[in-house]
Amino acid sequence: MHSFEELSKEFSIKFSTSHFPGNPTSLYEPADYFLSLGGKRIRPVLCLMANELFNDMHADAWHAATAIELFHNFTLIHDDIMDKAPLRRGMQTVHEKFGSSTALLSGDVMLVVAYDYLNKINSSFLRKIIHVFNKTAKEVCEGQQMDMDFEKKERVSLDEYLHMIKLKTSVLLAGSLQIGSILGGAGDGNQHHLYEFGKNLGLAFQVQDDYLDAFGDPLKFGKQVGGDIIANKKTFLLIRTMEVAADSQREEIKLLLSSNSDDKVSRMLSIFKSCGVDGWAKELKEKYIDVAFKHLEDIAVLSARKKPLKELAGFLLQREY
Amino acid sequence: MHSFEELSKEFSIKFSTSHFPGNPTSLYEPADYFLSLGGKRIRPVLCLMANELFNDMHADAWHAATAIELFHNFTLIHDDIMDKAPLRRGMQTVHEKFGSSTALLSGDVMLVVAYDYLNKINSSFLRKIIHVFNKTAKEVCEGQQMDMDFEKKERVSLDEYLHMIKLKTSVLLAGSLQIGSILGGAGDGNQHHLYEFGKNLGLAFQVQDDYLDAFGDPLKFGKQVGGDIIANKKTFLLIRTMEVAADSQREEIKLLLSSNSDDKVSRMLSIFKSCGVDGWAKELKEKYIDVAFKHLEDIAVLSARKKPLKELAGFLLQREY
Repeated sequence: MHSFEELSKEFSIKFSTSHFPGNPTSLYEPADYFLSLGGKRIRPVLCLMANELFNDMHADAWHAATAIELFHNFTLIHDDIMDKAPLRRGMQTVHEKFGSSTALLSGDVMLVVAYDYLNKINSSFLRKIIHVFNKTAKEVCEGQQMDMDFEKKERVSLDEYLHMIKLKTSVLLAGSLQIGSILGGAGDGNQHHLYEFGKNLGLAFQVQDDYLDAFGDPLKFGKQVGGDIIANKKTFLLIRTMEVAADSQREEIKLLLSSNSDDKVSRMLSIFKSCGVDGWAKELKEKYIDVAFKHLEDIAVLSARKKPLKELAGFLLQREY
Repeated sequence: MHSFEELSKEFSIKFSTSHFPGNPTSLYEPADYFLSLGGKRIRPVLCLMANELFNDMHADAWHAATAIELFHNFTLIHDDIMDKAPLRRGMQTVHEKFGSSTALLSGDVMLVVAYDYLNKINSSFLRKIIHVFNKTAKEVCEGQQMDMDFEKKERVSLDEYLHMIKLKTSVLLAGSLQIGSILGGAGDGNQHHLYEFGKNLGLAFQVQDDYLDAFGDPLKFGKQVGGDIIANKKTFLLIRTMEVAADSQREEIKLLLSSNSDDKVSRMLSIFKSCGVDGWAKELKEKYIDVAFKHLEDIAVLSARKKPLKELAGFLLQREY
């Protein structure tokens, strides 16, 4: 059994090889470039940890973890095209550096190569793992589409937003865990609890992300505070506020959404606070963490084996937890 | 054993079901829309025929054929985005009707669903078939990238163009045949001959396509004659002409490429003819057909079983063959 740090380090080393044929370089260099930008490699590590929760590490867990990380990066390349994002991890996005068409195609080929890695998995697991991988992949696409649909909608309910976040973000954490657990020989019940652990962890993480964007310490957060407010992004906070605000506050929010005044962030934050969504978000995050840890407890393995997963959850959910 | 017409009809009926979950409709309706535009379904029929060349139809051949047709349509949706094409089969392209982001995502999810169908294939064939499918998929992406690279290059050699066409067009015909033959129990030698048959058929088809665009009968061809010339498209004809033309002709071609004059098509055609590329193209097409049929002959099954494939080749290569 390995710690979060050990697995993260070992995966990063193994992953930093070239995953693509050499030619044409005009197709594969952009793919290599994007992978070289790094990342926390959370999803593959979840897959590896889930394997080790039940058993010694299965050699195929590394193939599955690699496929998952390639899939995740494929979605990021394509999301960046859709969002017209100029930067990712402080560096130029693929479409910005190489053009949209090449970015589109590099993403496509990265997804195919993800299936190359899945195809290395032992036949006794292959079909089941492709099934979970595909179900997850479709849901991630659905989540991204819903996110784009929401941008055009004036009003989005909390339930709708929750469902979108579940698909766009949480299911990949959950699916990564499930795939690892399958390779560890976990039964359906344990797979289910691990999946729910990942799903609720993802929801808690997203609530935290939305919260920190509005109320975080700029020094610790590492991003511009209020970025979501400036971009009129629908977040847990804004959606909840629209549901509980008084009519006059709702009107003010509508005005703020159509303005770019200097005090937009501070005025929005003061409405958030007067509606109590800061406290509400903290509670919501705790609720998801509680559910996640309840499912982790219910997994039928010795408690000591769960330590790395708890460690990783602590890392994701920062000091606040 | 079934004829081209029978297989084409039966596949079209089976394929005209919904391949996607219901929600969100904003993601899956565009995918359904594109598939409803139809098509000749050549690739899946090749897969089915290759199966029947060796054996009674394997139930999994329908799954493989469906995966192949979904993959083909995924590439068309993404190619249309890259080419900014407004129309496909006389109807609006997906990005034109639903926006580029949705088109990108509908294509992505269509590729994932193609793997869902592959994943239904019996375990004893699954890994080998995914291997051929993935190899082909990567090559098709490479071909599309090379095609885009060529647009920006002033000079492309015949060998480079040939390699690009092989990847962009031919390998999918070849791979479809190989996948069908694997399900029919074909050995490596027969798989190889069938693959080469498909590859050369694809090359012959592309030469014919380029030829007809310049010299075809507008009434029979169904497309605007000279469309490639107007669009400055690098074709077998233009590339060969640039290789054999006199300096003065090459200069005239360069002028024509930068002009949009009314006589652009007629002047380019007259250079093509004076360089003899019309006859050259006919011969080249015959050469590929000969190689294709030599490989078909070399497949170790009764000659009568090869009839449907010959029929389909005749259909693709029209009355000229």
